[in-house]
Amino acid sequence: MVNAYAAFEQGGVLQPFEYDPGPLGRQQVDIQVEYCGICHSDLSMIKNEWGMTQYPFVPGHEIVGIVAEIGSEVTTLRVGQRVGLGWYSSSCMHCEWCMGGDHHLCLSAEGTIVGRPGGFADQVRADQSWIVPIPESIDSAVAGPLFCAGITVFQPIIQCGVQPTDRVAVIGIGGLGHLALQFLNAWGCEVTALSTQPDKEAEARRLGAHHFVNTRDPAALQAIANSCDYIISTVNVSLEWSIYLNALRPKGRLHLVGVAPDLSLPVFPLLAGQRSISGSPVGSPATITKMLNFVARHGLAPQTEVFPLAQVNEALEKLRSQHPPYRLALKC
Amino acid sequence: MVNAYAAFEQGGVLQPFEYDPGPLGRQQVDIQVEYCGICHSDLSMIKNEWGMTQYPFVPGHEIVGIVAEIGSEVTTLRVGQRVGLGWYSSSCMHCEWCMGGDHHLCLSAEGTIVGRPGGFADQVRADQSWIVPIPESIDSAVAGPLFCAGITVFQPIIQCGVQPTDRVAVIGIGGLGHLALQFLNAWGCEVTALSTQPDKEAEARRLGAHHFVNTRDPAALQAIANSCDYIISTVNVSLEWSIYLNALRPKGRLHLVGVAPDLSLPVFPLLAGQRSISGSPVGSPATITKMLNFVARHGLAPQTEVFPLAQVNEALEKLRSQHPPYRLALKC
Repeated sequence: MVNAYAAFEQGGVLQPFEYDPGPLGRQQVDIQVEYCGICHSDLSMIKNEWGMTQYPFVPGHEIVGIVAEIGSEVTTLRVGQRVGLGWYSSSCMHCEWCMGGDHHLCLSAEGTIVGRPGGFADQVRADQSWIVPIPESIDSAVAGPLFCAGITVFQPIIQCGVQPTDRVAVIGIGGLGHLALQFLNAWGCEVTALSTQPDKEAEARRLGAHHFVNTRDPAALQAIANSCDYIISTVNVSLEWSIYLNALRPKGRLHLVGVAPDLSLPVFPLLAGQRSISGSPVGSPATITKMLNFVARHGLAPQTEVFPLAQVNEALEKLRSQHPPYRLALKC
Repeated sequence: MVNAYAAFEQGGVLQPFEYDPGPLGRQQVDIQVEYCGICHSDLSMIKNEWGMTQYPFVPGHEIVGIVAEIGSEVTTLRVGQRVGLGWYSSSCMHCEWCMGGDHHLCLSAEGTIVGRPGGFADQVRADQSWIVPIPESIDSAVAGPLFCAGITVFQPIIQCGVQPTDRVAVIGIGGLGHLALQFLNAWGCEVTALSTQPDKEAEARRLGAHHFVNTRDPAALQAIANSCDYIISTVNVSLEWSIYLNALRPKGRLHLVGVAPDLSLPVFPLLAGQRSISGSPVGSPATITKMLNFVARHGLAPQTEVFPLAQVNEALEKLRSQHPPYRLALKC
């Protein structure tokens, strides 16, 4: 039996929950969970904000653990190996997206916490293809958030073809943004942090920003007009997007990873300056592997505060209160 | 003296106008105009819709002619050569955009009809860098529109990296769209015409469309959901853009060349499917050259009705009336 924590109703407090995972599939792997990050989407799912939560609901999709058992056809993992698992835990492996290396775009990709129990537990199950070994130098206690927050901001770098010669700005210095600043600095870019909180400047610079702009100061935003090759937005609120388009150089791109409300945009800056707007979800297992190797080689890490699993409700409350450190994780 | 036709006041009828072009600059070239296309932007400039028209105003920026005289430092053109000239007639040649081959993004690029007399004349002047030789097999009488309408829809193919394996839809079958259909068909793509006018289907197919969708029919639009790698919009009106984003496959791109009103867009299709939105103006001289060689090799041509220069006002009226053939040109 698996020992987990579950919400038994919409928005409910998490309580101990035991379930039988059933027989292991041939392509499946059971992971003994060591740590599991807590993500804002866990909160959204507990409240069934996206209408796809099934109760009892076990959250957790930033999982670090040890391979406990492998199915008969699993060839890429061995028992005892340290691995991670993120938002998805399987995909069809045969559609054009899976066959093209974009497994995260598979229409049948199965969310780790959508209709199945996640990682707030002592064990979790997934297909071998979505379970990724973790390089030795990455600390288990902070590795979890790389599998959702990390890949969310690493994917744009790969997808957009960001070059070390590029000037890249990041909107928002939170769970996603604090990783984006680290990644882009290590990528060799000239990095600007865009934030509504001027008291975050020193912290942003410590994380890798070369410049800091207080976005509540119109003059400061105006001063960076035509200066960014990319702007990566990690926020989920409506902004005055025309100002950010204005901050892009010709051929520049505004890339969104935060689910913002509908955009309202002037067309002229797109046409006259060949600017573009794009977005992305998480990334494929191949890109996650690429990220982990990059993170290990550069000694990067999510800033993570760890709670024991038994204190999961305190941890969730801390995330809800909007005053957490950058990421939270559970010791399972 | 140069014999031209000019508007002497905002929205004024064009009348004969004579001017002295002054001494030829060292990098400049005088072209004896043979034909000059008429573009909607000529109409906008006559009416000073963009606030940058100087009167007397000589329109015309789709110019075909013969090199009549070259400046002392002109090395790339010779007298007697057949050439064309489009929206721009000079750029600084030294900024990062000029140095990077994107001369059309130069902030000092000079519009052929902005503050200087254009091609509704027997002669026009430009810098050698923006004057492009025309391959022999292209007919002078129809070549003009390639230099504005043509490059406007060829640029996205180059800029976006459209592949012959891509499925590309074109919104609008007019002056721009009828060229986009020809280009994309010759490029080897699977081409869909999107139009509000079902009676244009046969014509669209003749121009190169493999599929035709009446965009006033919601079911027909719904039927192409998730099917296009690119959608190129040539229209300048507000559309229900979410429907078009919906017609894009994952990783698909909506590219605008028509100056539409502000966009209102849902963010989710961008994020979940890695879709993007971009735009472009005309193109660089190097891309114009590439286009002309492609057009010549594939025997493509703008559908163009020719008027004598003396009938310029009748021709402008035909364009205003919204019932022209695809493009109009003047025999100068």
